[in-house]
Amino acid sequence: MTNSEKALLLHEQWHGKISTDAKCSVKTREDLALAYTPGVAEPCKVIAEDKDAAYKYTLKANTVAVVSDGSAVLGLGNIGPYAAMPVMEGKAVLFKEFGGINAFPICLDTQDTEEIIETVIRIAPAFGGINLEDISAPRCFEIEERLKERLSIPVFHDDQHGTAIVVLAGIINALKVTGKTVESSRIVVNGAGSAGIAIAKLLLNYGFRHLILCDKSGMLSENTPSLNWMQQKLMTVTNLERKEGSLADALKGADIFIGVSAPGIVTKEMVASMNKDAILFAMANPVPEIMPDLAKEAGARVIGTGRSDFPNQVNNVVAFPGIFKGALESRASQITEEMKLAAAKAIAGLVSEEELNEDNILPQPFDSRVCEAVSNAVKANLAST
Amino acid sequence: MTNSEKALLLHEQWHGKISTDAKCSVKTREDLALAYTPGVAEPCKVIAEDKDAAYKYTLKANTVAVVSDGSAVLGLGNIGPYAAMPVMEGKAVLFKEFGGINAFPICLDTQDTEEIIETVIRIAPAFGGINLEDISAPRCFEIEERLKERLSIPVFHDDQHGTAIVVLAGIINALKVTGKTVESSRIVVNGAGSAGIAIAKLLLNYGFRHLILCDKSGMLSENTPSLNWMQQKLMTVTNLERKEGSLADALKGADIFIGVSAPGIVTKEMVASMNKDAILFAMANPVPEIMPDLAKEAGARVIGTGRSDFPNQVNNVVAFPGIFKGALESRASQITEEMKLAAAKAIAGLVSEEELNEDNILPQPFDSRVCEAVSNAVKANLAST
Repeated sequence: MTNSEKALLLHEQWHGKISTDAKCSVKTREDLALAYTPGVAEPCKVIAEDKDAAYKYTLKANTVAVVSDGSAVLGLGNIGPYAAMPVMEGKAVLFKEFGGINAFPICLDTQDTEEIIETVIRIAPAFGGINLEDISAPRCFEIEERLKERLSIPVFHDDQHGTAIVVLAGIINALKVTGKTVESSRIVVNGAGSAGIAIAKLLLNYGFRHLILCDKSGMLSENTPSLNWMQQKLMTVTNLERKEGSLADALKGADIFIGVSAPGIVTKEMVASMNKDAILFAMANPVPEIMPDLAKEAGARVIGTGRSDFPNQVNNVVAFPGIFKGALESRASQITEEMKLAAAKAIAGLVSEEELNEDNILPQPFDSRVCEAVSNAVKANLAST
Repeated sequence: MTNSEKALLLHEQWHGKISTDAKCSVKTREDLALAYTPGVAEPCKVIAEDKDAAYKYTLKANTVAVVSDGSAVLGLGNIGPYAAMPVMEGKAVLFKEFGGINAFPICLDTQDTEEIIETVIRIAPAFGGINLEDISAPRCFEIEERLKERLSIPVFHDDQHGTAIVVLAGIINALKVTGKTVESSRIVVNGAGSAGIAIAKLLLNYGFRHLILCDKSGMLSENTPSLNWMQQKLMTVTNLERKEGSLADALKGADIFIGVSAPGIVTKEMVASMNKDAILFAMANPVPEIMPDLAKEAGARVIGTGRSDFPNQVNNVVAFPGIFKGALESRASQITEEMKLAAAKAIAGLVSEEELNEDNILPQPFDSRVCEAVSNAVKANLAST
């Protein structure tokens, strides 16, 4: 049986990867009178007086909605809310198993920006946070920004920020391995969708200065026609020399390549044209922009991918559970840029100097210290919200 | 410590009466590759081809949304979606513990009919059924009817139909105890909100002919001003003699009183004016329309209440878990009138001839046979959907 067949069979057997379970017993009339009527009226009355008491008496404090419209699911594209369900359930599993957080899939039968925003606002009372997932760009930017304005609970588009945090964590450690600096490193981010844009923004906020965003048409600049509003916004802080040309042109003399794009589009020649000790995060799934062995042969020093069968897996699961755990436990109203930067540093910091090498720049997804470290980093930055 | 204090303390300790839990392990990279990427793509692709496969590969098949806008919660009134949370979580607990069904609270931050309808439609993909709860009349009627038209999954307003089913079950057995007949029994339903109207409709559908609906102003008829549209609809089949007068007038010569109204509004004198062997379901909570001992003294034969500390508790929990279990397992697109009637008969049938007496007309809420019997009755009536 192939792994694909096995995965399908298991999904049929699981018949839903999460369940909702009672935390209180209702085996006797007394149980029922405490958990349901008439006893349940007591917390209701307290919350009716003070909405905030919902954090004390209900599941809100530790529960996240995993919201998707199914418009950009994995590498599968716009497959809609029903087909997105297995992914959102899977995400809910990761929230629980890695972060101890309840999560429930909210798969929306609409792809209209206004309707998505209104719907999420209306269902928000039961949730302590909103994790947006697999919503296509550029709608995802507007949906997230406007939900952050309208809601007083954290809203976090994991495809953007989870990815960006882990990439930054990896880059921080890759700089240590290669001796490159934040000030001088030249970065090329290939893929100008939700992940590429968020990665670019976070790297710039961390202090990098030389960053060029590319898409299928090559390097993006203020002169590029038909950019979306978020791409345009980024053009005021990237590719300040207004370079034009292909991805191959962009990579000449670059130090860092970050790919959230398509399989096999980076050649050995392109890698060879980069600066010495080049860092490549080739995160196209399941086939990277360039295979690690080829990149090494061409002279690259540190190579990360999205895959677990190569060194340096860049995996969101080291970020989002701790991000939400910290935000929920501290009752943060937003997940700020400072929290994301702190989370990236915390993840990087988990790889000790002794352990750090070109094939070991990130902690393992199953490292039990990760969630706590990220959560603490978020909480330490609460003051800035 | 009083029971109220105990209930409040327990709710604080539970900190949410339900949790979401992983049904699959993610302890290794292989686990992750099967439950999440890349394996999760397989069920996604199958569902993208055939939406119905969501019933096979996701939690949809066995999961219900408990939807409320907090506008009519228990006896507490319009306390809003946050304060409604403990009740909706409690309901989710009952779904799981009595019916084995996943349920998640969707507490809506809107009380606008159109917005509620749109929101429920948009979040429907993850759910196999919609349980509406504690939504005020007459909005609840329109919301339920229009959702039934728009959705292909069962939509069930439990305050209406769950209550009506259990009342009918109790009445079926009360008739056996008293020797009264469907054809000749005169019924007074006091309370013309969601429960009262649903009870009246189901009793009429069962075959009762003489039924008068009362509210605070007394008997309702076609002549009563300012009825809502659903009450008006019922006036073509109730109080056909267009009687006028108070509840006391209505009860003279009546056989059955069903109260979903207010504490203590029925007097001994009123009961004494009813026909011999009167049946009273006095379901105001926590204090019934008349206390059972007073009703007995006044000559009533069978008395039911909403309370567990008197005989004949009329409790929805014997209905809704089995209703949804049957509907979900048979993939019914609607819960029909036939299913409700069959469910009531099934519940009544669980009290054997030997057990049946004036203080034992309904099965106990914790009787493990109940859910299965109701579920089977629903499934047996699937053909009619």
